[in-house]
Amino acid sequence: MADLTLTTFDWVPPPPRGFVRDLRVRWALEEAALPYRVASAPFSDRGPAHLAHQPFGQVPWLTDGDLSIFESGAILLHLGGLSAKLMPPDPRGRNEATEWLFAALNSVEMASLPWTMSKFMGHPTDTAAWKFVDDFLKLRLKHMEPVLAGREWLAGSFSVADILMSDVLRIVDQFDGLGDSPACRAYVARATGRPAFAKAHADQMAHFAAADAAR
Amino acid sequence: MADLTLTTFDWVPPPPRGFVRDLRVRWALEEAALPYRVASAPFSDRGPAHLAHQPFGQVPWLTDGDLSIFESGAILLHLGGLSAKLMPPDPRGRNEATEWLFAALNSVEMASLPWTMSKFMGHPTDTAAWKFVDDFLKLRLKHMEPVLAGREWLAGSFSVADILMSDVLRIVDQFDGLGDSPACRAYVARATGRPAFAKAHADQMAHFAAADAAR
Repeated sequence: MADLTLTTFDWVPPPPRGFVRDLRVRWALEEAALPYRVASAPFSDRGPAHLAHQPFGQVPWLTDGDLSIFESGAILLHLGGLSAKLMPPDPRGRNEATEWLFAALNSVEMASLPWTMSKFMGHPTDTAAWKFVDDFLKLRLKHMEPVLAGREWLAGSFSVADILMSDVLRIVDQFDGLGDSPACRAYVARATGRPAFAKAHADQMAHFAAADAAR
Repeated sequence: MADLTLTTFDWVPPPPRGFVRDLRVRWALEEAALPYRVASAPFSDRGPAHLAHQPFGQVPWLTDGDLSIFESGAILLHLGGLSAKLMPPDPRGRNEATEWLFAALNSVEMASLPWTMSKFMGHPTDTAAWKFVDDFLKLRLKHMEPVLAGREWLAGSFSVADILMSDVLRIVDQFDGLGDSPACRAYVARATGRPAFAKAHADQMAHFAAADAAR
């Protein structure tokens, strides 16, 4: 029986709220209806106790009994092993969900994070560096578009791969980066329209709002 | 019994040779002494047959019987399940190797790829965009340094996590990015000093050299 505690920050400034990566884990837990607790680590003091669980001083981490897991990809893979609602149990379906889970992180987010960070920070767009970043993302979207035009979910049924891929594309969409990718955009709407996403998002926002109230 | 075929490009231009990601898979296969064949996909024509195996038009992919797997991370995770030389078989060791495998791709390579690509392309370094890229990598290296100063391998014994992490850091080292990270640098030397890396690297170089000769 899983004994799950998700740790996120006790507080973050408003801009990243709704985007902190504990959202991915909350979403998965809600999809699978797995019971879990939420714990907090101090945002302003990321000392040895924090680094012992998350060596980059980030969140989230998940404990399952005496197992402590960092990296949202690793956590979602672990949760996929706990529920067929998160990962097909047959070898072929499991393989498909796993390769797309990696694709979300290492092929698409690899291109989208520099793009969204540049947008967020307002870097100039008349540079060779920006053109490289923008072209890299467009290339990935060009390949994702026919994939998502041809299927509802990446691995046959909804899985952790969709949680990661839609969460990655959602941030691109926030900066109007999916205008030429209607299938990607529809996929983001389809995924984030699920009740489990709404619950996870509302819970994260409430967690940080409660921290404001306590300050 | 695994029936493994690794597909890479039939040819690539000289600069990326020794860095194409089939190297990661070759290295793992050599470490585990798993028998495998190497197949080629046309570099200059990435049509539907290619995209059916690798939807971004890249390499590598691995077939194991009738299972076809893309994403180097997913492939290495699959191989980790085939050999204790690639992943500790106990749950705690397996978890440690898995989280560090994701960390290599989604925390470290996420920061190192924009950095190495900027170096490779000679983007100017007096910009806000470069400062962001450089600071991002330095932050990750700052966190990796004490980890690698305190252990020989990431997950107790050598594992697929070390193949990915050292391959990622190796490219940073090629651009002299590990000068302030002696433990990271020593780790790269330790990992790439293994006979299986030398064999995998030589085999990749020979594969592309043979393609030159046939052109």
